[in-house]
Amino acid sequence: MKRVITLTTDFGTSDGYVGAMKGVILSINPDAALVDITHEIAPQNVEQGAFLFGANARYFPSNAIHIVVVDPGVGSARRPLALQRGQTILVGPDNGVLSLAIDGLPAGPGESTPAVRAVHLNRPQYWLPRVSRTFHGRDIFAPCAAHLSLGVPLESLGEPVQDWVRLAVIPPTRRDDGAIVGRVRHIDRFGNVVIDVADSMLAEMDPSQARVQVAGRELALRQTYSDAAPGELVALMGSTGYLEVAQRNGNAATELGVRVGDAVTVMP
Amino acid sequence: MKRVITLTTDFGTSDGYVGAMKGVILSINPDAALVDITHEIAPQNVEQGAFLFGANARYFPSNAIHIVVVDPGVGSARRPLALQRGQTILVGPDNGVLSLAIDGLPAGPGESTPAVRAVHLNRPQYWLPRVSRTFHGRDIFAPCAAHLSLGVPLESLGEPVQDWVRLAVIPPTRRDDGAIVGRVRHIDRFGNVVIDVADSMLAEMDPSQARVQVAGRELALRQTYSDAAPGELVALMGSTGYLEVAQRNGNAATELGVRVGDAVTVMP
Amino acid sequence: MKRVITLTTDFGTSDGYVGAMKGVILSINPDAALVDITHEIAPQNVEQGAFLFGANARYFPSNAIHIVVVDPGVGSARRPLALQRGQTILVGPDNGVLSLAIDGLPAGPGESTPAVRAVHLNRPQYWLPRVSRTFHGRDIFAPCAAHLSLGVPLESLGEPVQDWVRLAVIPPTRRDDGAIVGRVRHIDRFGNVVIDVADSMLAEMDPSQARVQVAGRELALRQTYSDAAPGELVALMGSTGYLEVAQRNGNAATELGVRVGDAVTVMP
Repeated sequence: MKRVITLTTDFGTSDGYVGAMKGVILSINPDAALVDITHEIAPQNVEQGAFLFGANARYFPSNAIHIVVVDPGVGSARRPLALQRGQTILVGPDNGVLSLAIDGLPAGPGESTPAVRAVHLNRPQYWLPRVSRTFHGRDIFAPCAAHLSLGVPLESLGEPVQDWVRLAVIPPTRRDDGAIVGRVRHIDRFGNVVIDVADSMLAEMDPSQARVQVAGRELALRQTYSDAAPGELVALMGSTGYLEVAQRNGNAATELGVRVGDAVTVMP
Repeated sequence: MKRVITLTTDFGTSDGYVGAMKGVILSINPDAALVDITHEIAPQNVEQGAFLFGANARYFPSNAIHIVVVDPGVGSARRPLALQRGQTILVGPDNGVLSLAIDGLPAGPGESTPAVRAVHLNRPQYWLPRVSRTFHGRDIFAPCAAHLSLGVPLESLGEPVQDWVRLAVIPPTRRDDGAIVGRVRHIDRFGNVVIDVADSMLAEMDPSQARVQVAGRELALRQTYSDAAPGELVALMGSTGYLEVAQRNGNAATELGVRVGDAVTVMP
Repeated sequence: MKRVITLTTDFGTSDGYVGAMKGVILSINPDAALVDITHEIAPQNVEQGAFLFGANARYFPSNAIHIVVVDPGVGSARRPLALQRGQTILVGPDNGVLSLAIDGLPAGPGESTPAVRAVHLNRPQYWLPRVSRTFHGRDIFAPCAAHLSLGVPLESLGEPVQDWVRLAVIPPTRRDDGAIVGRVRHIDRFGNVVIDVADSMLAEMDPSQARVQVAGRELALRQTYSDAAPGELVALMGSTGYLEVAQRNGNAATELGVRVGDAVTVMP
């Protein structure tokens, strides 16, 4: 049965781990359409995995199945989990890595309150026959996702649970003077600095007046990279819907010396 | 509708940008067969993107659709473009990145003069509903390619244009003494140095007499790597149809200290 | 015809070489399902390629076709080879890179002794029309695999051969005191150290008594990473079925300073 299955992991691409997961999936559902989101999440960085997966999951078909494996607790008591909202299913460890994406997924038809169903993947008949203690991506998550892609109902794969882990993310704060204080969430390949201040948070500000303070610099808010001169730093609403700081023809993160977690203030 | 869509970008694979493009495409055409050519073009290096894409595009089915995004001018006035020659369609920014490949594509059946059709992708009904200023790969190029893969005619997606940008590439020159002077176009993962002197340019030379001068060394022209002793530098016609300098069991670019753009002379 | 074709190479992903191979395959069989195992084998490291391919091949459908290209002898007299066992077909250079996987593949139905058929791929009608001297992955292996995926019998592509190259791998040795002496075979992205001591070799040992000696340290054998304290080194049976040494929340290879080939001893 044709169905998109995506993979997001911290496995890298050099060791064949992702290849083995794909082999497992195609052995169960030869018609699965496999798509890599990224395998370069920093090792065991659950928060980065949750953020990057959340930023990209919404661009996939609404009936896609997404596997996300950033799993420092593999082999411990943490549960293997599947979540379903509308037609979209997420599969991965119950450590919060799935939780940031779930609110951005489309609701099921006719739902007034979008519902999330969750199960603890605890039915070994849907796993590989032999399960290692260190690679549940291949041995549990991949085969469960493949069975789900064949139309097996979510509740067949495990017991319903309510207390699945939601990542505690501190949202940006609004000061009395109207300023919004957020922090750096991601630095991309180009050195663009992605800040957790969403588009909607700036709705009450006049974009032509707003100033972005980062690493001791103050930047105007621009529309696009090309509004800046070569080498100039520029703040703009990025493609993920979050505030970004970029340097035209350069690497803003290096230029500013900022890191994930650093504070950024938007002055009205 | 089954159709190959390839992707060539400078996005890298760590941030999920390419994954989002694929999600957009599969949301429009679930049967598209997606193939990565490379996502490791040096950031904003239009010429390298054009060269590597051109070297590989001709190995794909003649009805493939190719997306190429190396796009320093994203968000500025540069136009989103689609080119068609025969059954092959290229989609990307109008900055020359598509232009080196076009001449190597097969002509349409019965064409005496192979024709290229070009349109400015300016019909928002074929874009994502919300278009960012910084990621046209996801918001314009991916959905346009997906609609084209469903059989929508090229001219439905935008106005025909004639003045699309061709990359100005300085070809190798032939000196009075018969020597050909080219330059380094690419250095690959193995350290092989790819030079812009094509097979056909050496047709008048006696290969057993030809000498390649590079970085102060003079090398004979060999048939294959294994004609050289371990550690030896060797010049040969490479797999892309261009002259290459390699080092057996070594990295020629490092050994020679050459860079993209350096001059290389072939003496008859 | 739908069939999985995997690719394992040392080509990297930056130069478009793998993309060209995929283009060739899809030009011959548009329904091939292409899966990357890894393209990050160290350049020309046949033994590493054979090991990583062997560790992952068995997770794919039993009728998969696997292309493995780590090929320092390309263009020399080494033969292009295809091996078949049961329904699985392996394609690559005859330098041993295919040989470690073959014994782990399922036998054909009704075979008492699992048989391996081998052919020298010497029929140019199944190659690209123009074959370079340096890129048989694109010009010979990819088109041969694609034709095989369409159901062309193995023996149509070349002459049967018996004397194909098996990699000479020195197995771990058992000392008089019952200790097993193996060596490091692979270091993965996480710094996990994979040692050539298989699960089955430790069958006679009491796991709670066994001690692993590596780089001057002695480690107990644990069940999983999470049995260790953060920063602690831990020895365990890894997901590939081999002994591994890991560091919880750290990089064991760096911590220990070990390299591929170093000796590791398991004391009973």
